[in-house]
Amino acid sequence: MNRRHFGRTLAGAAVASTGTFRWLARNLPAAATGAVPHAIRADRLRANLEALARFGRTPKGGITRVAWTPPDAEARRFVMGKIMAAAGLNVRIDPAGSIIGRRPGREDLPVILFGSHIDTVPEGGMFDGALGSLAAVEVVQTLADQGIETRHPMECVIWSNEEGAHYGRGLFGSRAVVGEFEPGELDEKDEQGLHIRDAVASIGGDLSRIKEALRKPGDIAAYLELHVEQGGVLDKAGIPIGVVEGIVGIVRYRVVVTGQANHAGTTPMPDRHDALITASRLVVAVSEETMREPGRQVGTVGKLAVHPDVPNIIPGSVELVIELRDLSMAKINGIIKRIEARAGEFAASSGTTISIEPTSTHQPALATPWLRDVISKEAAAAGLKSLNMPSGAGHDAQMIARIAPMGMIFVPSVDGISHSPRELTRWEHTAIGCEVLYRAVLAIDRR
Amino acid sequence: MNRRHFGRTLAGAAVASTGTFRWLARNLPAAATGAVPHAIRADRLRANLEALARFGRTPKGGITRVAWTPPDAEARRFVMGKIMAAAGLNVRIDPAGSIIGRRPGREDLPVILFGSHIDTVPEGGMFDGALGSLAAVEVVQTLADQGIETRHPMECVIWSNEEGAHYGRGLFGSRAVVGEFEPGELDEKDEQGLHIRDAVASIGGDLSRIKEALRKPGDIAAYLELHVEQGGVLDKAGIPIGVVEGIVGIVRYRVVVTGQANHAGTTPMPDRHDALITASRLVVAVSEETMREPGRQVGTVGKLAVHPDVPNIIPGSVELVIELRDLSMAKINGIIKRIEARAGEFAASSGTTISIEPTSTHQPALATPWLRDVISKEAAAAGLKSLNMPSGAGHDAQMIARIAPMGMIFVPSVDGISHSPRELTRWEHTAIGCEVLYRAVLAIDRR
Repeated sequence: MNRRHFGRTLAGAAVASTGTFRWLARNLPAAATGAVPHAIRADRLRANLEALARFGRTPKGGITRVAWTPPDAEARRFVMGKIMAAAGLNVRIDPAGSIIGRRPGREDLPVILFGSHIDTVPEGGMFDGALGSLAAVEVVQTLADQGIETRHPMECVIWSNEEGAHYGRGLFGSRAVVGEFEPGELDEKDEQGLHIRDAVASIGGDLSRIKEALRKPGDIAAYLELHVEQGGVLDKAGIPIGVVEGIVGIVRYRVVVTGQANHAGTTPMPDRHDALITASRLVVAVSEETMREPGRQVGTVGKLAVHPDVPNIIPGSVELVIELRDLSMAKINGIIKRIEARAGEFAASSGTTISIEPTSTHQPALATPWLRDVISKEAAAAGLKSLNMPSGAGHDAQMIARIAPMGMIFVPSVDGISHSPRELTRWEHTAIGCEVLYRAVLAIDRR
Repeated sequence: MNRRHFGRTLAGAAVASTGTFRWLARNLPAAATGAVPHAIRADRLRANLEALARFGRTPKGGITRVAWTPPDAEARRFVMGKIMAAAGLNVRIDPAGSIIGRRPGREDLPVILFGSHIDTVPEGGMFDGALGSLAAVEVVQTLADQGIETRHPMECVIWSNEEGAHYGRGLFGSRAVVGEFEPGELDEKDEQGLHIRDAVASIGGDLSRIKEALRKPGDIAAYLELHVEQGGVLDKAGIPIGVVEGIVGIVRYRVVVTGQANHAGTTPMPDRHDALITASRLVVAVSEETMREPGRQVGTVGKLAVHPDVPNIIPGSVELVIELRDLSMAKINGIIKRIEARAGEFAASSGTTISIEPTSTHQPALATPWLRDVISKEAAAAGLKSLNMPSGAGHDAQMIARIAPMGMIFVPSVDGISHSPRELTRWEHTAIGCEVLYRAVLAIDRR
């Protein structure tokens, strides 16, 4: 890439004045990533990620740091006490249990908020959430190292229960910020009978004050989140930065196919009303109808149950879940209409009935255009190729998008694997992502 | 039908000498069934069936008389003590727990054996097994009523644990007769820890003497079993008698489709290796390949499990069971070959793998041709239409066929429903079936 570009960018980012040669020596050679050197310290970010990965490490090599369990609580104490404190952040825990580390700004301006989560699914990986959380702290640490004062106050956030591996619903911390709870959610117990109030208290939250977690439109100048892609698009394309266009809407439909259970030995083939054959045609049709038009929409049948599910009884009914995701609800609605038409044909030809009803709808959350532009420009300024792409997974960013400008930065997941001990993001990509976050934060501050 | 035929048949069957007018008055009018009047007493058979149905009756209206449980034991004591004793049978319990009621013959000849079972699946019906068992006793009772001596000794049998709803394997009594047990089977415990030895003892069996249940080729002149069809072929065709050509062979195959589990939001459609889509194509192909050639073969996928079976993860693997049934093993082998070829195409086009391995094979048991002829002729002689057909379900007859001539008589199941509280065989059909059994037994005895 163009080395001259590098100099200009650093100057523009008000970073060039101090320590340039020190961090140049410590970082990856530019040749390894195709990028200009970083302001952030890749070695420190890596050391912090590796230190965090000790919390909840399993014999299989995964991380089980389920929200509001002891490994999560210990990890949060470690990040607050060691990493955030070292970065000079003023750390508090909000009533939902989210950790917020604040760095003051020169002017009386809304906060620039950035971060992610550190809770994991069972047997998850060490980068999902952790990268965005520790990169956020690294950004502030770098500001401190460089002696940079910003106009806006900065807040690093580590959200509470993003994954929803405990109590079944994720994005807890960010939902608390916008006041979005399910009826009865704050009075639930887990499988062991633990009240959610006590679970949240175990990481320092306080549901009796939950309303104090709310923020208003205007409180947050911008929200940024760096995250591993979790899909394989960037890895396959060999592009290090994804500029998220938005977080897809997700609609789930409960489907029940009702045929007639009967003896598999005594019922002639033409007389059958086999619910599984009809359901199977539908599974194939979900894939076909999803792919019938161009775009990056996805459609999945991940859950399916056969009744009575014994080898010698013709299936009497099948229950399955269709999940459709896209940035456009209109596209999702078009796909399900086509699927319903196919279902009607399958039911008629097999003497079965099919019911399809939506059970949950998460609206798409589009990234804020000017923030997308900031990320794209800063990636380019750092000599990095980037790709506009949807986020097929949900993130806390989608809740914050309701009250503040939102942008997300993706870095590649090797082979697109996530929620697995085999999840991997290359160290050079963690550094690149952190650097783009750093540059974007400074660009927003200058705005 | 031809009433004159009736008189001739009775004479030929050596039944005409006594009581002709008595049972004529008691039975269904011939017009109701299209048949000549019966020698057997339909009202008595019905009363006995209704009395037996009180044992294990459930609130849902079904019968739960699982083998070797108290309702089974009580029902067996009732049938032995009340019904078989009244018919003048000399009753014993063999070491497997099967009830055998003997009536001596005039000559030193092998026994003519007929009967069925009275154990049920949970929430089964009142005719499956019970009809063949009580019709067998009714045949002997009619012989006694009519004062008929036969050349052969007659034995009514009520087999032990036909259904296999307890200890998982059926045809226990008939397998004991031919000495066919699985390794370790006679030392198993049920889910409650009850040893099979004690379960069998609860109905009067004695596993320590199990070898005494064995019979040799030549011991049995013929085995006959009357049973409800359990399918809907006779009911649909409006034909009251099925002449069983044989009991189908059953081969089960365990199929594992292995794809790649991945995030349903972040994995683009073209990059997926969705095990459920591949499995769905296979389910449809099992049906298509089974029906590709003429015949009454059946192929079923009744059991299917998705892993990990959550809405937002692309299925990584699917396990399913294919079951194929036909009277010809060659036909079954041809069908699975075609299914395997289709599976190979599906795997190749989806980047998944499919393994198909046979897990159990039950060879077909063909009915003995001269016994089929006897049944067909006696049905015709009684003025009844009959249909040659396979038995798609397993029956004790298939074990006895290994050592003796075997024939089975089917009567219609309304709508083909069985193993359900909704199982129904019309009273006139129970009587018709019993009458054909009676006539066939006499015809065999004359042979």
